[in-house]
Amino acid sequence: MRVYNFSAGPAMLPLAALEAAQSELTDWQGSGSSVMEVSHRGKEFVACAAETEALLRELMGVPENYRVLFLQGGASGQFDAIPLNLAAEGDRVGFLNTGQWSAKAIKAARKYGLDVQVLADEAASNYTTTPAAGSYTVDPASTYFHYTPNETIGGVEFGYVPDAGDVPVVADMSSTILSRPIDVSQFGLIYAGAQKNMGPSGLCVVIVRDDLVGHARPSTPSIWDYRAMAESDSMLNTPPTFGIYLLGKILAWVKESGGLVAMGERNRAKADALYGYIDASGYYSNPVALDSRSWMNVPFLQANADLDKQFVSEAAAAGLTALAGHRSVGGMRASIYNAMPLEGVQALIDFMTDFERRNG
Amino acid sequence: MRVYNFSAGPAMLPLAALEAAQSELTDWQGSGSSVMEVSHRGKEFVACAAETEALLRELMGVPENYRVLFLQGGASGQFDAIPLNLAAEGDRVGFLNTGQWSAKAIKAARKYGLDVQVLADEAASNYTTTPAAGSYTVDPASTYFHYTPNETIGGVEFGYVPDAGDVPVVADMSSTILSRPIDVSQFGLIYAGAQKNMGPSGLCVVIVRDDLVGHARPSTPSIWDYRAMAESDSMLNTPPTFGIYLLGKILAWVKESGGLVAMGERNRAKADALYGYIDASGYYSNPVALDSRSWMNVPFLQANADLDKQFVSEAAAAGLTALAGHRSVGGMRASIYNAMPLEGVQALIDFMTDFERRNG
Repeated sequence: MRVYNFSAGPAMLPLAALEAAQSELTDWQGSGSSVMEVSHRGKEFVACAAETEALLRELMGVPENYRVLFLQGGASGQFDAIPLNLAAEGDRVGFLNTGQWSAKAIKAARKYGLDVQVLADEAASNYTTTPAAGSYTVDPASTYFHYTPNETIGGVEFGYVPDAGDVPVVADMSSTILSRPIDVSQFGLIYAGAQKNMGPSGLCVVIVRDDLVGHARPSTPSIWDYRAMAESDSMLNTPPTFGIYLLGKILAWVKESGGLVAMGERNRAKADALYGYIDASGYYSNPVALDSRSWMNVPFLQANADLDKQFVSEAAAAGLTALAGHRSVGGMRASIYNAMPLEGVQALIDFMTDFERRNG
Repeated sequence: MRVYNFSAGPAMLPLAALEAAQSELTDWQGSGSSVMEVSHRGKEFVACAAETEALLRELMGVPENYRVLFLQGGASGQFDAIPLNLAAEGDRVGFLNTGQWSAKAIKAARKYGLDVQVLADEAASNYTTTPAAGSYTVDPASTYFHYTPNETIGGVEFGYVPDAGDVPVVADMSSTILSRPIDVSQFGLIYAGAQKNMGPSGLCVVIVRDDLVGHARPSTPSIWDYRAMAESDSMLNTPPTFGIYLLGKILAWVKESGGLVAMGERNRAKADALYGYIDASGYYSNPVALDSRSWMNVPFLQANADLDKQFVSEAAAAGLTALAGHRSVGGMRASIYNAMPLEGVQALIDFMTDFERRNG
């Protein structure tokens, strides 16, 4: 029995990828060992990691002059690693603050002595908006410009890629990567914890343009030194091998499903269905501005907030799990990443309709 | 078909743990989700992590005044995190250099401005020895004392726990943890990458005494700040959930197998059998001093080194895999961690005997 799992991350994964891993969990490729048991430096696993990288490059259209790194420590680790790799103390950097994840990235940049300019802060809307393109200007003297394309907690997503001129754009794509096609060449650095659209937690993917590699401060932890990791194919130390392997399975599923264009169409259809239902409802509501709604994370409220616990527990009993809102937001949240089928969203809408009928 | 896998890490895991994970990989505890798909903050996974910690505490006899942390970045990450958490710039620290992993830890401590005293360096023996107890003295003014109880590459292991007086002893136990009983109270901090005796790569266990928690430098990456991680039950950010889960399965297997006393007896028997065979052989040899031989990693040479590749490939064909020596050492290496049964060691000895008969 599989449920429709609306967890914000770690999150629902494609069943095909899980079943592929399950079938060979004790004997990978006829090796007589699990993929978890083989050396990361053996030719079998080196080939697995190379295939995973190649598939990611193919699906995302990663240009030749970008390195793909498989790191540990999650996006939170990169909050520290990015300032250490890209900037010296006192360097100016521009940030947009659109919610809790932006705020954590800003805090870490300040910790490492950067001159952080917050170019826009959506506090006035309680972080239910994104700043309009053109409403802020990135200082051309900035070493980099950082934003969070999708805020997992607030359910806020940018509808555009900010223009930072010649300043490298750094983006925390943890909860949006692989959800639709993007033009990687618009970014200097993309990073993403894997546990939403890419696999199990414990793997962080960094896609970084060559000219941003090689500037790490001496105090950078070696496992996050982009040059050292690029030169060792992310194997300066033992990488999270099972995560890389499972990412490969998930990318194969994305490819078989039609690639990122198909993912984007599917995700748009899911989001349209859910937001459309909520907006037409007199009982449920979503607080996010129309142009800033996330395709991946849909927070929603019901008119009678006293029933939130009941909603979440009855939904779980009906096979719709992990719908509790983030502890800082309340209400409910449906995360509808790539692995969530349209049928899951439809089942949620049916449940919401029934719940309102019974309680509204 | 399962092989006897002699990989140094990632390494052979108990089949019982792998099969338990396999059976519920798409539906964990009847949740309808994989353990990889559920929130780390949900009550199910929080209970799983707590059970894993409790079992580790029980098996290792971890005293109440020690915190157990589940971190990312491996032991290599801790090479950086330990100086950042425990010491200020200029602080004196003592190290023993017994091989490549000690040397990396020393290099990282110097990177963070510590006054590193190398109290013993086994270069003269080409790192085939450990310094005798009493042959070095830890400066009582040291902030901590670091050593590597087992050097995975050289196959060198301490037969004793160094006495550092009141100076906290910090030990990289990556390749020896859980291999026998230890007295945790002799240590200030124990750390270990999981990928030898504890599970898949991507998880690092830190066991740290309370008085060493809370002194991190402001520049410490947040995911390695011991206090922040202790206060959040290692969930300041998303932990490597599958690794923690599988560690729980492996610890359950250790407990069912009789705990660390039984592991120690079993590992001693395996090591005695293999070293005994090598020492009695006129064809194979092990370079390590008798009192410093690792129970876990057994490097060995054959009289005709030209046949090393043939040995490794014929052994693999016979179901004895990953026997190539480390690239820096050459020859062969048999890593015989907890999951390797005595039958596997016996099968290796039988193969070695046959190989010598055919080629010696």
